[in-house]
Amino acid sequence: MKLIKYPKRRTWSQLLKRPAIDTLALEQTTTEILSKVKSEGDSAIKKLSLKYEGATIVRPLVNQEELKKAEQNCDSKLKKAISIAFNNIRKFHLAQKEKEVRLETTDGVTCWRKSVGIEKVGLYIPGGSAPLFSTILMLGIPAKLAGCKEIILCTPPNSKGELDAAMLFTAKLVGIDKIFKIGGVQAIAAMAYGTETVPKVYKIFGPGNQYVACAKQLVNREGVAIDLPAGPSEVAVFADQTCVPSYVAADLLSQAEHGADSQVLLVSCFDSVIKKILMELEKQLKVLPRKAIASEALKNSKAVLVLNKDEAFDLLNLYAPEHLILASKNSDKLSSRVVNAGSVFLGNYSCESAGDYASGTNHTLPTNGHAKAHSGISLDSFVKKITFQKITKKGIRLLGSTVELMAEAEGLAAHKNAVTLRLKKQA
Amino acid sequence: MKLIKYPKRRTWSQLLKRPAIDTLALEQTTTEILSKVKSEGDSAIKKLSLKYEGATIVRPLVNQEELKKAEQNCDSKLKKAISIAFNNIRKFHLAQKEKEVRLETTDGVTCWRKSVGIEKVGLYIPGGSAPLFSTILMLGIPAKLAGCKEIILCTPPNSKGELDAAMLFTAKLVGIDKIFKIGGVQAIAAMAYGTETVPKVYKIFGPGNQYVACAKQLVNREGVAIDLPAGPSEVAVFADQTCVPSYVAADLLSQAEHGADSQVLLVSCFDSVIKKILMELEKQLKVLPRKAIASEALKNSKAVLVLNKDEAFDLLNLYAPEHLILASKNSDKLSSRVVNAGSVFLGNYSCESAGDYASGTNHTLPTNGHAKAHSGISLDSFVKKITFQKITKKGIRLLGSTVELMAEAEGLAAHKNAVTLRLKKQA
Repeated sequence: MKLIKYPKRRTWSQLLKRPAIDTLALEQTTTEILSKVKSEGDSAIKKLSLKYEGATIVRPLVNQEELKKAEQNCDSKLKKAISIAFNNIRKFHLAQKEKEVRLETTDGVTCWRKSVGIEKVGLYIPGGSAPLFSTILMLGIPAKLAGCKEIILCTPPNSKGELDAAMLFTAKLVGIDKIFKIGGVQAIAAMAYGTETVPKVYKIFGPGNQYVACAKQLVNREGVAIDLPAGPSEVAVFADQTCVPSYVAADLLSQAEHGADSQVLLVSCFDSVIKKILMELEKQLKVLPRKAIASEALKNSKAVLVLNKDEAFDLLNLYAPEHLILASKNSDKLSSRVVNAGSVFLGNYSCESAGDYASGTNHTLPTNGHAKAHSGISLDSFVKKITFQKITKKGIRLLGSTVELMAEAEGLAAHKNAVTLRLKKQA
Repeated sequence: MKLIKYPKRRTWSQLLKRPAIDTLALEQTTTEILSKVKSEGDSAIKKLSLKYEGATIVRPLVNQEELKKAEQNCDSKLKKAISIAFNNIRKFHLAQKEKEVRLETTDGVTCWRKSVGIEKVGLYIPGGSAPLFSTILMLGIPAKLAGCKEIILCTPPNSKGELDAAMLFTAKLVGIDKIFKIGGVQAIAAMAYGTETVPKVYKIFGPGNQYVACAKQLVNREGVAIDLPAGPSEVAVFADQTCVPSYVAADLLSQAEHGADSQVLLVSCFDSVIKKILMELEKQLKVLPRKAIASEALKNSKAVLVLNKDEAFDLLNLYAPEHLILASKNSDKLSSRVVNAGSVFLGNYSCESAGDYASGTNHTLPTNGHAKAHSGISLDSFVKKITFQKITKKGIRLLGSTVELMAEAEGLAAHKNAVTLRLKKQA
């Protein structure tokens, strides 16, 4: 990690720059794959999966037999852990349900909002070195609570055409309707356009490599909604003299091990605190299985010494981190200073891992500074909030002239007339 | 309007197709303007405003003197109408404020969500034939309620470099911080990148012509958030034998007068009802000031006769209209059938104009079928919902092994270690 002491404010933007992601460079390849699937459907998916992922897909749809087998093969301790996480995540997202409030804004003019689940949603879970069943929880639970009618999941199989048992167990637990063994850009294409076996969805969720991120962007331009703009994962830690340096170091490393493009940022007003944390970091890094990846990520990472708390939080809010840990015994008070962040972890015992897996909050969060204008995934992400209004005879009589005057001033005579007619009949 | 009787389901998608919008064709011009403003700032804005909009901008920022004058010049009846609308819209959006619920998902694990206003937002209000002060209400009121710290507005001046009095009155009433006399792509560029006088914002809202829509799309790709994907305005009406044909006709026309690219759709199970409405439509159209525009819009528009209510609502939900009017005395019961729509108007007295101006609901809504996955503008659009968690010693002791097991199964040892360390210290 690079240590930067008392940087001047005018250098902050430069200091906080994320490694640039250029998905545009991948646009040509990605566009080709998308259009192949669009025109040739399932047969294109089979060919492309073999070509790009070395996977032979015979029947993409997972059947009951496979689900049953997965339940048997999944470790029982892990099953219990997943179920505990499931319950916490469900509780937290259930509390996000909005009550329908009917409001009479004027006598006889009643307005309300109703949350309706997006009918068809698609979840993408990448393959790679490990089965990301936790992301199935994070996307599947709110989708189900929102009342989405069709929830499908695409994820690449291994070279034998199989899926991980924990993945299948989790997908079944959550209540996914259909699981398809399809990965990469093909999966995004299948969900965006629909094929003979994969239904077309209205919104696509989930992480993925650069090609998947690019594919999501491209289908978004064609009108398919997506969850969030993509970017590598990141954490920022504010640490003061009441932090536990070894915990902070562990939290920084747990972010760094995600990928070589991950970023961590440490901010403190105390030189000695930073020193202790960096020493701990070196120590812990040595014994880490994913040491190579974490070391690479740490090269992009910075420890910044600032003058005071005001500066610290100005810097952190400008960075707008995906995860923000307040490693301090005064975290409750400090938390009111947070303006831009995806998810915030308070105090010495709230490690990011807890939120990543099991505390209840969602782990799909805005990266790359998008926390300035975007929220993480929640129940909101899976519903549309439709407004309704019911106006009575009395209501239009009371509100009518207001509408007439405004419509006239905007030069919209037919808008005015729609009211005038309704007022006349009553005269 | 084209009358289509009992269309087969397989023809519905084709039948409901919107006129294609190809903003891509405008990308080159738009990109050039964007990059000019990005590199040259204010001086580029002045040149471009003169070139594209014939407007000479001396001081883009509206001053106190201009605001005072506008308040004096604005018609007092109109001022009162705008104030009534302001109050209704404020009431409805205030009710959207979310209470902070602290939830203990496990003993010692407390999670909550906090809505924080997006710090800097930019509102764009197009010029053209009429001053759209109503849109200032619809965007400015929720922005203010959300607690956005900097709310700026850009709108093109007339050839004398002036803004409409009602526009300025409304902007002041709402509490906009800075009003700039800048229009078109230049305005979007100024808000996206910032110039010497216009502050850079994190999210841009508001309607506009095709170039403005294209500019919003392009800056969105660069990381600036935008409100909604663009598309021409539209209404769908479900009418049964309890509707008032003249009201329905007036509602259809109030949508059609918006622009030649507007679309209206009438759906009914009764041939006689459609006939009566179309006769009324002809009658009312004849005396409409914006007859030419409305006639053009009606050419793209369809009246569809269906077999029964089930078919009607399947068709309407597939269309996913921006506005949906249920012209029926049974609208309360029918409303439960609505799955995809932006805003719904119930019964014979709830005309769209009421919602466009003054009932309280927002008029910035998803068009072009986006209501399948998007909500209209609300308080949500101006906040980020940040999640927080506080875990105690006891909490991590209870939840720790769950996190450890899951992290291990996902192959993320550092994630596990962040918990293990915290458990050890307690042993």
